[in-house]
Amino acid sequence: MSEQTVSEQTLTPEQVEAMIRRGPFHQWLGIKVLEIGEGEIVIKATWREEWVVNPDRQYTHGGILATLVDLTADWALVSKTGRGVPTIDMRVDYHRAAMPGDLTARGKLVKWGSQYSVAEANVFDKDGALVASGRGVYLTAQPKAK
Amino acid sequence: MSEQTVSEQTLTPEQVEAMIRRGPFHQWLGIKVLEIGEGEIVIKATWREEWVVNPDRQYTHGGILATLVDLTADWALVSKTGRGVPTIDMRVDYHRAAMPGDLTARGKLVKWGSQYSVAEANVFDKDGALVASGRGVYLTAQPKAK
Amino acid sequence: MSEQTVSEQTLTPEQVEAMIRRGPFHQWLGIKVLEIGEGEIVIKATWREEWVVNPDRQYTHGGILATLVDLTADWALVSKTGRGVPTIDMRVDYHRAAMPGDLTARGKLVKWGSQYSVAEANVFDKDGALVASGRGVYLTAQPKAK
Amino acid sequence: MSEQTVSEQTLTPEQVEAMIRRGPFHQWLGIKVLEIGEGEIVIKATWREEWVVNPDRQYTHGGILATLVDLTADWALVSKTGRGVPTIDMRVDYHRAAMPGDLTARGKLVKWGSQYSVAEANVFDKDGALVASGRGVYLTAQPKAK
Repeated sequence: MSEQTVSEQTLTPEQVEAMIRRGPFHQWLGIKVLEIGEGEIVIKATWREEWVVNPDRQYTHGGILATLVDLTADWALVSKTGRGVPTIDMRVDYHRAAMPGDLTARGKLVKWGSQYSVAEANVFDKDGALVASGRGVYLTAQPKAK
Repeated sequence: MSEQTVSEQTLTPEQVEAMIRRGPFHQWLGIKVLEIGEGEIVIKATWREEWVVNPDRQYTHGGILATLVDLTADWALVSKTGRGVPTIDMRVDYHRAAMPGDLTARGKLVKWGSQYSVAEANVFDKDGALVASGRGVYLTAQPKAK
Repeated sequence: MSEQTVSEQTLTPEQVEAMIRRGPFHQWLGIKVLEIGEGEIVIKATWREEWVVNPDRQYTHGGILATLVDLTADWALVSKTGRGVPTIDMRVDYHRAAMPGDLTARGKLVKWGSQYSVAEANVFDKDGALVASGRGVYLTAQPKAK
Repeated sequence: MSEQTVSEQTLTPEQVEAMIRRGPFHQWLGIKVLEIGEGEIVIKATWREEWVVNPDRQYTHGGILATLVDLTADWALVSKTGRGVPTIDMRVDYHRAAMPGDLTARGKLVKWGSQYSVAEANVFDKDGALVASGRGVYLTAQPKAK
């Protein structure tokens, strides 16, 4: 089944979750796909003690939040790409300390392009507060045929 | 001992490594401090299988590279801050796939400020190739006295 | 009248436009304020021939679009700041070539903070197509009393 | 003469300046090319009163500095591209207020790629102080033959 065929079908959250969880780091992050739409995705990451950066105050490392911005924005494109795509660059704004608990991230396409595309993501703590947000630019050119 | 006192002394790589490794996520990343200078740091992260994003091609997740940019740029400031400081925002450019192996990151102060400061970091693979680079802006205002 | 007093009042588009147009570069850009809200603004910039970067294809320079992202995001904060505030950093994504014609920009607060704040802006061409979008981080700490 | 041919030759500062100054906005900025190298450029922009954002303190608008980061990083690639290329995205850090006077900008290739490339630029005031610095990602894929 070609990528074009996949991307023209409607992918279910279960299908996308299975694709994402092929990646060992995504498994380690306990990624679940809650919702999937046209240029949109909602994922959840399962808190683990290793995420903590500050042992006194117990908040999560900014690198975990950056990872969630990148992967959520990337997979917000899956209805068009049918796969995860390479990140060209990424930017994250940190809004407040992320205390222990699962994190939810909402990703949304900003602009689709046949060569590169822009998507954004917001990351929320278990109480729904915005802890980080950002954007990535993704290489959406079709890989060259071999 | 006050932060001011610490930051006026010359910190050794061992002292900075001990500070960094208080963070559980930094332990998980196997961070070692190789060099420390005025507004400069070189760190090493120890590869682990969980870093992989693509099980077929085995390269490391961009979130790990983003984490290294953030933490290396942050701790490049330690000769002035005497501690890790909050990240305001961060940006990463991805240059090539990071294949399995330890990663080395060099961080350098770009501009010190009493309210916020900018630092940059380059991440290299085990063969010395640049895999990612970026910048962070850090809150370097002294925390308010309590 | 103190800044605090101004920011507690509801500013009109005319008042904000007068503040913005004190800046010679804003006058050169022909800035008009179309709407103002709580953490929101809509501005218009008046096209001029000097904006063109490519004399053959006639599209506007990316620096003009970056300027509009910066100033629109900055002034989206005016309902809270009562003034323009210093930009810490700024990022712009370019979505399509901006052909000759006035540009409209919508700015919106992302996260208010007492030390620094994040706002975003979208820039549209005369036909309403998104040509650029981005974000800035602004220094919203009160200036020190003299 | 094809683009490939141009880019294989060594371009002089005069040649590059003539290419840059074809753009009306570049003329308005009074751009001069001081030096050109492999993946490097130094340009100068000629101060004008319209650059000012703050009529009381007289400093230059951040949008002018952003423009210089973008154009300098872009043209740092000219030894490889033989032309100005489209900006995918751009980021600027502001380091200090730019007081009236000509500005000098140094651009440097960070990573060349056949699809997209990263370059950086530092902007200095007339006394040599760093006022802004940043990066752009540029579309360096060859345009499709028509």
